Amino acid sequence: MYYGCSWFTMKIGFIGFGEVSYRLSKIFFENGFDVLTSVEGRSIKTRGFVNSIDYIELLSTFEEVAKESDILISANSPHSALGIALRYGSLTNGVYLDFNNISPDTSKQIANFLGDDHFVDSVIMGKVKSKELNIYLSGKLANKVESFIMDNLDSGVDSKINTVVISENIGDVSALKILRSSYTKGVSALLIETFESAKKLGLEDELWNILDLTENKPFRESATSRINNSYKSSKRKYEELEEVLEFLDSFSDKKEKLMSIATRDKFKYLKNRDFDN
Amino acid sequence: MYYGCSWFTMKIGFIGFGEVSYRLSKIFFENGFDVLTSVEGRSIKTRGFVNSIDYIELLSTFEEVAKESDILISANSPHSALGIALRYGSLTNGVYLDFNNISPDTSKQIANFLGDDHFVDSVIMGKVKSKELNIYLSGKLANKVESFIMDNLDSGVDSKINTVVISENIGDVSALKILRSSYTKGVSALLIETFESAKKLGLEDELWNILDLTENKPFRESATSRINNSYKSSKRKYEELEEVLEFLDSFSDKKEKLMSIATRDKFKYLKNRDFDN
Repeated sequence: MYYGCSWFTMKIGFIGFGEVSYRLSKIFFENGFDVLTSVEGRSIKTRGFVNSIDYIELLSTFEEVAKESDILISANSPHSALGIALRYGSLTNGVYLDFNNISPDTSKQIANFLGDDHFVDSVIMGKVKSKELNIYLSGKLANKVESFIMDNLDSGVDSKINTVVISENIGDVSALKILRSSYTKGVSALLIETFESAKKLGLEDELWNILDLTENKPFRESATSRINNSYKSSKRKYEELEEVLEFLDSFSDKKEKLMSIATRDKFKYLKNRDFDN
Repeated sequence: MYYGCSWFTMKIGFIGFGEVSYRLSKIFFENGFDVLTSVEGRSIKTRGFVNSIDYIELLSTFEEVAKESDILISANSPHSALGIALRYGSLTNGVYLDFNNISPDTSKQIANFLGDDHFVDSVIMGKVKSKELNIYLSGKLANKVESFIMDNLDSGVDSKINTVVISENIGDVSALKILRSSYTKGVSALLIETFESAKKLGLEDELWNILDLTENKPFRESATSRINNSYKSSKRKYEELEEVLEFLDSFSDKKEKLMSIATRDKFKYLKNRDFDN
């Protein structure tokens, strides 16, 4: 067990201690923070795991963790998020951050309860596993949390923590997370649909090679040109999608071309909207 | 005007001479091929343009161009493709290539008429503007066309021509083109939808920055992990999309979230299909 020099060192407390808390605590510890948690009421397995981590300061209850922490982090599961926030969020004098992948709606409920003096809307962008942790913040105290973290960082270590303040509005960071999620999951669905069609035609490898040739451009550059292009020629793109669907018709049922149908409908909407303006 | 040494040099003929033909003819000429066309029946403007290109060999009719060419290329517009193929494709002793962005169906109609002794399914992947031209070929004569081009290339020049033979089947290359088109236009539609939502929330720049952070990975690596991930957790992804839609509901009408609705439906289908198996 590690007893940090708590008089000078900033304290990050964790309610719950799974994979995400473990990774976060490690990065924060390496960067010079004290990390606290408790095993109150936890399974023997979790106790064993937490006890094996030598840098963690263990308190007897989560209530104490909440009271001692400058930043209190909840990283459990989306459905336990609200309960934990209501129970422990109000006990801390520090700032409460929720990393449970919650909806903007849940985020707002927590904010309504804790007030924006104790709650900051926060999201980890990208993987927690990597050596670089990107934390996005919005809310009245977002700047304070950023200084709190950045002023105390140890620049000599391998793992980096970056913070980005988006705005003073609770909900902005959650909204960005959900827009990103909507886009990336849309791409996933498109990939699955396209490659399932290619597989049926025995052209899977060939399609990988072709997309590898044309899709490896810098994101922003290719995305901007796609957006401009689509606005400029939504009618032609709509017609091309009609052809795509005619082609897919011969070997796919409706569920197998949902994304292509939506793409056609989207361009139909865009071309008509442009026509109306 | 340029009179090539036609006894030794392979001849590429063009029916029609717009932007694409111009770029193709330039690259082929730089690589040591003779390039032929005609201005028969063309506008004064087109005549002036073609006459100004000093490396082009001009014949008096397109019929002669067809008869003289080892490879006859039609690059005009999708709707004129079939007519040109029927009229000139049958006159050539060489191979007829159609670069008119036609549907697999039109491609098959041309193949039925010309037979696979004179027709090769062919597509230019990527932009014609670049210094590198990628031509994909399928059909019985695909290998012959590849050797014809590759054996005659001048390796000492800047602009490169690459050929890729996909298979012996007419239609495979057109199918690849349309699958690629379906995927890339789906991404375009997703981008537009996502950034229109971000704009409404005043978070456009912030979303660009976030996606720039996470979307700049090599295509194949990120696409493969997305596909595997989506199959593994289609139920969770379906639930997350339900949350996305709940969020979008508050400020979007149906047309503004078509892609997200389709993504949700796709994951619903995938999770149920996995359940059935």
